[in-house]
Amino acid sequence: MAVIRNVLIWDAERSDAEYGDIVIDGGGGISEITEAGAASGEIMIDGRGRTIALPGLVNSHTHVSMTLLRGLGEELPLMDWLQKKIFPVEDRLRAEHIRAGADLAMIEMIAGGVTCFADMYYFMNEVALAALATGMRAALSRGLTGESARKLKENLDLADEFNGREGRLIVQLGPHAPFTIPRRSVENIARTAKEKNLGVHFHWLETKGEFDSFLAEHGTGPIEYLEQTGLLDVRELILAHGVWFPPDGLRAVARDNVTVVHNPKSNLKLGSGYAPVRQMLENGVNVALGTDGAASNNRLDMWDEMRTAALMHKGYHLDPTVLSARQAVRMATVNGASGLGFKNVGLIQAGYRADIILIDMSGPRYVGCNRTNVPEFVVYAGSSRDVRATIVDGKILYKDGECVTLDEEEIVSRASKYRAEIDEL
Amino acid sequence: MAVIRNVLIWDAERSDAEYGDIVIDGGGGISEITEAGAASGEIMIDGRGRTIALPGLVNSHTHVSMTLLRGLGEELPLMDWLQKKIFPVEDRLRAEHIRAGADLAMIEMIAGGVTCFADMYYFMNEVALAALATGMRAALSRGLTGESARKLKENLDLADEFNGREGRLIVQLGPHAPFTIPRRSVENIARTAKEKNLGVHFHWLETKGEFDSFLAEHGTGPIEYLEQTGLLDVRELILAHGVWFPPDGLRAVARDNVTVVHNPKSNLKLGSGYAPVRQMLENGVNVALGTDGAASNNRLDMWDEMRTAALMHKGYHLDPTVLSARQAVRMATVNGASGLGFKNVGLIQAGYRADIILIDMSGPRYVGCNRTNVPEFVVYAGSSRDVRATIVDGKILYKDGECVTLDEEEIVSRASKYRAEIDEL
Repeated sequence: MAVIRNVLIWDAERSDAEYGDIVIDGGGGISEITEAGAASGEIMIDGRGRTIALPGLVNSHTHVSMTLLRGLGEELPLMDWLQKKIFPVEDRLRAEHIRAGADLAMIEMIAGGVTCFADMYYFMNEVALAALATGMRAALSRGLTGESARKLKENLDLADEFNGREGRLIVQLGPHAPFTIPRRSVENIARTAKEKNLGVHFHWLETKGEFDSFLAEHGTGPIEYLEQTGLLDVRELILAHGVWFPPDGLRAVARDNVTVVHNPKSNLKLGSGYAPVRQMLENGVNVALGTDGAASNNRLDMWDEMRTAALMHKGYHLDPTVLSARQAVRMATVNGASGLGFKNVGLIQAGYRADIILIDMSGPRYVGCNRTNVPEFVVYAGSSRDVRATIVDGKILYKDGECVTLDEEEIVSRASKYRAEIDEL
Repeated sequence: MAVIRNVLIWDAERSDAEYGDIVIDGGGGISEITEAGAASGEIMIDGRGRTIALPGLVNSHTHVSMTLLRGLGEELPLMDWLQKKIFPVEDRLRAEHIRAGADLAMIEMIAGGVTCFADMYYFMNEVALAALATGMRAALSRGLTGESARKLKENLDLADEFNGREGRLIVQLGPHAPFTIPRRSVENIARTAKEKNLGVHFHWLETKGEFDSFLAEHGTGPIEYLEQTGLLDVRELILAHGVWFPPDGLRAVARDNVTVVHNPKSNLKLGSGYAPVRQMLENGVNVALGTDGAASNNRLDMWDEMRTAALMHKGYHLDPTVLSARQAVRMATVNGASGLGFKNVGLIQAGYRADIILIDMSGPRYVGCNRTNVPEFVVYAGSSRDVRATIVDGKILYKDGECVTLDEEEIVSRASKYRAEIDEL
């Protein structure tokens, strides 16, 4: 047994936080929470009563390898940005670029308390291997466009090879977006997903232009599309963005197997707009949070996303009660984990996986933080710089400024070399 | 002569950044920028070509001592928050609380690259002494409410004692807001400001309710009010918030002596709304950025404000070209400095004060950063955690994680003691 001693524990199922010890079994699960100082076992980390323990943060929609494209095509609308800047570069990327970008992203994510991410891209074997090597948890899908049988085969091969690996990887099917893949291919993907018991990760109504052409092209509303293609019935359906989701259709996706991933900063930066998150919450939709790729954010920082989500909808609705700090942490932890299909991840409770982050509360921004206000201090006053340790399945991936499982210097150097090649293209 | 060697220099008057050495004279001014490695003198810091130099960040509207009230009354509307939570506590604060909160704020600000701030509060002698001791630059005003002659005398005494001190302090008059001070008192303050050659710092149309009652109470539009009270003619007029500033009145405040301070995160968090910043920029208004107090933000982090400003208006207008990263850095540096009345502050050029921050660009989030894209990397990918050194008037206030002029542990301990007393009230 390993013990994280004397930490102030909060998760989305608690009202107040409590001081305690977290006991972790040899399999990387939480076996018990005791009173502070009461647990016996090897002390993994001593929080000395000045450390907050939260569930690890879940980045529920990203494209990790796009760290290699960060800063390309700034301040352009989505379609120009994709078609003029991103797609031409992506056409030239090889497997080693994907791995380099994924490794680079993992440094940033684990240093910021992210323990789990959902990724849709290509050469996804590389991302799977990077996640396995780093120790992160991940839900992976191969982006599927056009009618390509080759791409679908790659996605299915990815599932055969990696689904369930080490209990940390899940593979889903990744139809890219309604405007990049024909409806009959989506129907085929949904059917295949049901046969193989796989989830589906899908970009969904990100921009107004996409919404307008959706109506023109498909001749049905978005909800009918989800119903008729079979997507609503897959094991897990992960709808990324949903900025232009018609609010009157939200009740239809308030289902255990459907999650909308809100990407607040990416939606703002690309000028895509304000997702109807207040209405999603009112309708009981499971809402998670994601960063999107580093080329449209440009950070993979879930603290930023929690804070931005909690702030932007208050301002938009002129109502400071919209999307509370507590809801933001819930979205960034258990809502994401369960939405991506991970059982027993996202809370700090006996029986859950030991995916835990430790936050230093001894600094100037935490004066006044106590048992009653942990999520408010974390979301409004905190930042990723406060993360002292990041733990997945009971293993320390990051501690006191050091990535334990990654060679940061080598990765930055390798990524810089590839980026220089991209800048020459 | 002291030299900051081999840094990538950018300020709001440059298109591309340039590698160079910054030479600082014995009086704390920038005497010269040379090619990288070419300057002679004592090496103060060697950037080794992996360090960005930006002008110090200017927090143009805050209430630093409110760090002691951080987290009180979360998720309440402005008027409830003020009247039920903040004002009752403020009635009980004494001089030592104000100093403790100011000291606490300075740790956070200098660690995040803020070199200058504008503060309106009470017991302002304490804030002045804290700024002098820390080495920060500050524009200070005593908040004036009601018809109090005592408060105005305190503000004028503050000016007598501190205006111009060490070249780092400016004192302004601080009428609180149109709804907390009668019009005839504002007229008197404007007249006094002109006689004494002082600027004025004023809260301005922060909420819709305030705007509606402004019209009902004053019987004139906001622009007429500024004109008729004489405020438009004072040395510097600093209008904080301006969320409900009627866009058709913006041309009237496009004047050298008027600055609107945008407080993006505070305006969102309190549900106040979206200031018409795009229209301010289109009309040539000098726009600066501020955090507001830590009880309504809850961070004193100008990186957050730059990023939030650059993102929120893009999303609001569905246009990713609105409020560029370059404009955000301009607002957070030279626009603020000049708006607060500091001459030759806010750029890295010969003849300017050596208020400089150094940013580590060797980490994973800066892969791809080069001469052409410094402000975009800073605003979209960077964060306050990247600040390696903060320098004011050529003196290092913060370096490599340590506050040079402050005892961080003592300050946090003292502030925690006072906060515990406040929590008991």
